[in-house]
Amino acid sequence: MAKKSKERIGIYAGSFDPLTLGHIAMIKEAAILVDRLIIAIGINPAKQGLFTIPERVDLINEEIKNGALKGIKGCKLEAKSYDCMTVKFAQQVGAAVMFRGLRSANDFNDELGLALTNKDQDSSIKTAFLITDPTLTSVSSSMAKALIQNDGKVSTYLTPAIEKATRTKLSL
Amino acid sequence: MAKKSKERIGIYAGSFDPLTLGHIAMIKEAAILVDRLIIAIGINPAKQGLFTIPERVDLINEEIKNGALKGIKGCKLEAKSYDCMTVKFAQQVGAAVMFRGLRSANDFNDELGLALTNKDQDSSIKTAFLITDPTLTSVSSSMAKALIQNDGKVSTYLTPAIEKATRTKLSL
Amino acid sequence: MAKKSKERIGIYAGSFDPLTLGHIAMIKEAAILVDRLIIAIGINPAKQGLFTIPERVDLINEEIKNGALKGIKGCKLEAKSYDCMTVKFAQQVGAAVMFRGLRSANDFNDELGLALTNKDQDSSIKTAFLITDPTLTSVSSSMAKALIQNDGKVSTYLTPAIEKATRTKLSL
Amino acid sequence: MAKKSKERIGIYAGSFDPLTLGHIAMIKEAAILVDRLIIAIGINPAKQGLFTIPERVDLINEEIKNGALKGIKGCKLEAKSYDCMTVKFAQQVGAAVMFRGLRSANDFNDELGLALTNKDQDSSIKTAFLITDPTLTSVSSSMAKALIQNDGKVSTYLTPAIEKATRTKLSL
Amino acid sequence: MAKKSKERIGIYAGSFDPLTLGHIAMIKEAAILVDRLIIAIGINPAKQGLFTIPERVDLINEEIKNGALKGIKGCKLEAKSYDCMTVKFAQQVGAAVMFRGLRSANDFNDELGLALTNKDQDSSIKTAFLITDPTLTSVSSSMAKALIQNDGKVSTYLTPAIEKATRTKLSL
Amino acid sequence: MAKKSKERIGIYAGSFDPLTLGHIAMIKEAAILVDRLIIAIGINPAKQGLFTIPERVDLINEEIKNGALKGIKGCKLEAKSYDCMTVKFAQQVGAAVMFRGLRSANDFNDELGLALTNKDQDSSIKTAFLITDPTLTSVSSSMAKALIQNDGKVSTYLTPAIEKATRTKLSL
Repeated sequence: MAKKSKERIGIYAGSFDPLTLGHIAMIKEAAILVDRLIIAIGINPAKQGLFTIPERVDLINEEIKNGALKGIKGCKLEAKSYDCMTVKFAQQVGAAVMFRGLRSANDFNDELGLALTNKDQDSSIKTAFLITDPTLTSVSSSMAKALIQNDGKVSTYLTPAIEKATRTKLSL
Repeated sequence: MAKKSKERIGIYAGSFDPLTLGHIAMIKEAAILVDRLIIAIGINPAKQGLFTIPERVDLINEEIKNGALKGIKGCKLEAKSYDCMTVKFAQQVGAAVMFRGLRSANDFNDELGLALTNKDQDSSIKTAFLITDPTLTSVSSSMAKALIQNDGKVSTYLTPAIEKATRTKLSL
Repeated sequence: MAKKSKERIGIYAGSFDPLTLGHIAMIKEAAILVDRLIIAIGINPAKQGLFTIPERVDLINEEIKNGALKGIKGCKLEAKSYDCMTVKFAQQVGAAVMFRGLRSANDFNDELGLALTNKDQDSSIKTAFLITDPTLTSVSSSMAKALIQNDGKVSTYLTPAIEKATRTKLSL
Repeated sequence: MAKKSKERIGIYAGSFDPLTLGHIAMIKEAAILVDRLIIAIGINPAKQGLFTIPERVDLINEEIKNGALKGIKGCKLEAKSYDCMTVKFAQQVGAAVMFRGLRSANDFNDELGLALTNKDQDSSIKTAFLITDPTLTSVSSSMAKALIQNDGKVSTYLTPAIEKATRTKLSL
Repeated sequence: MAKKSKERIGIYAGSFDPLTLGHIAMIKEAAILVDRLIIAIGINPAKQGLFTIPERVDLINEEIKNGALKGIKGCKLEAKSYDCMTVKFAQQVGAAVMFRGLRSANDFNDELGLALTNKDQDSSIKTAFLITDPTLTSVSSSMAKALIQNDGKVSTYLTPAIEKATRTKLSL
Repeated sequence: MAKKSKERIGIYAGSFDPLTLGHIAMIKEAAILVDRLIIAIGINPAKQGLFTIPERVDLINEEIKNGALKGIKGCKLEAKSYDCMTVKFAQQVGAAVMFRGLRSANDFNDELGLALTNKDQDSSIKTAFLITDPTLTSVSSSMAKALIQNDGKVSTYLTPAIEKATRTKLSL
């Protein structure tokens, strides 16, 4: 029974500025594969986001507690920020796997290079690619923000709570 | 502790005619992510293989017991054949995830369609894509067989035991 | 008003063995762009289909009269078979445009070569590529037939009438 | 004859800074498919162009009146600028279809996401992808400007009038 | 001056059934890079061609002597057949490089695997990829044959001599 | 013997900020194909690099004299900077061919456009694409710099001398 004594941990890293329905679908896929999933918000000092890092953590935690990520069984979810290489953060939290979403062949070619770089840094940490519902192919944080700024619909991109927070932020 | 009471099972399906070093690298990657990994040999009545299905099972089991797949910790490996849709076989064995290797963007486009078809049949069974060492990009069973038939080197394609078995088969 | 005196005709060619929901979505897209759309069934003597050519014509005509293709406004639909190069058939029926569906980047690379060949044969006949709902990405006639033969679900692939006809054919 | 009472309108959107021979080839393709084609110049406040928006409109109108776009039959061409989402502009002008040029598989993957976003905003407006002569694959406004600045040839990229205007602008 | 004492040899392998204008454009590109270029016709016992191997050699030699490949300076051209792995044939003739044409990203992904396999067999023999005029993107031997059989134009695919020979063969 | 009286010259252009092991592998491939290979450092006034142009030249020359590029037979290597279009620099130095590395299908689509533009400028100068060891797929100057700044390993990316110089520069 030794194999079950060790919790299997995964990370799903991104900027989550803000979390989208595409991210949420990915998290639900990844949650099947690990005992604990860390939604890891990378701090990029060179890039000013719409939401602050603590705000992004809060938005994700709120979805975990009361929103679209509530009630996932068999996997503990948590949001954390980090300010180092993703593979080093994975080492620190003891993750066995980093999950990445793939939407198109363009994604794949870029992701392959990144995955090989990470494997070169620490071959014990794996990269697993997941796909989501094809209807979410075009969903991204930046597209959601652009749609709000151009009076488009975003109900297929964001949860109600996050849509509301994003509209508020963008109108400041 | 409920989440640990359930074993996480994955399948890695293929024709394995025969198992290559590319397959072996994939199996080692996948073994990190599940408690049990079933190497699933699809029976294709329309396609005459080089090895019979029981021979392929034996070759894989031999590598698990005494070869390149020996000593993998935290994951039980086993070879099984099946003669139905892969997603149905995954249901039968209680698998949470089907692993697929991705080598190129061409692979991705084909695999995406297959993964979406499988998701449409049973959305509870996930597809996770893994990559292997880039040196194994060009390794395939058919290339290995073609190289042997054309007096090429196959030591980067097959284990010694499987190379020997394949040479014997091809010289019959 | 001269420009309106000429009816704009398009063709959507394929083997339609049988028509799928993916084809139907494409036809609905193309119907917006032309006054008449010919669903053109290519006769391939080298390839034995599941349905005969007259059966395929009938299945499509039945969907136009009473099924999923009923009630399309502003565009007359009709099914026709042909046994020459598609671009020559387009010339014969006076078509301005041939519609093709694109599902992935792999499709695109193959289709580009075909479109350039057709342009080389007759540059006055255009090729327009359309996309369908992403949920239909993995839908194909061959996949639908394979699913039926393997006890899979096909309700997202075929209309009820065509599913029934296909099940009957496959059980003969 | 009801179907002919409604004019079919298309838009071909871009920044056209300036119009290239690649754009012109696309416009000629699209003109076969609609009764009216609006060459729609998107206003991007964040991006300073070489030509002002009114200058770009004038350059295109001049080609329509006296240049490479003169004499196209069966389709009325006009240049218009807009400063909203392209799909909203399409709604405003009553367009049935937005045309996009495809040059490579990279283009396709990016364009697919955009087309799906637009379909999500308004599913009644279609996206049709066209290809141009393969010799025009590498033609772009930015390449034309870079070639002029580096003493390269641009006669395969720009009409004489637009080449002259661009050289004048770049020498200011 | 030692470096000039050694002739640089390249091979351009294919089935050439028959040689097309696409092949000819490739040969002209490759001829700039080597002192001797062997047009290498692979013998595939499993595949019955239209022309016999000696006929294909003759057709190419005729173009070298009196046709589209006449007058190439600084590179000696010759057609040879071979019935082993291409990389082994390259070793036998002392070639430094194998040339391959690339038409699309699909080609690239397939060619990459092949090039890596060849590098694995003999890392001293290089693979160099060349592109041709974009107008030749869709040219292939099989497309030329299909066009002749379907009463299409092939003047952009074949030289006059090879078109004549192909028409004769196909009408037998 | 006329063909041997003319030296065959190639250029391998890039920003080399700094030279990586990926570049070095490419240079070794290209060196087989030409008598002289110019490692051409493009001066981009709009982009501030880590190393100055003379520093980059020195780093490359040092590798040629005493490092990883020492002892290449049959091809003279030299580093040169240039501040015009690459194809014009190729003309100036009498190069027959420009070498480009291809790592993925994404690379290919971008490179194809560039190669066609260059062919349009001067069709006598060829572009040849080479591949490197697949283990070097993810190696780039920018990745090497990012890894050093994030305490990652770079021994698979840079030579010892260039790693040292880069660490020194980045710590200033």
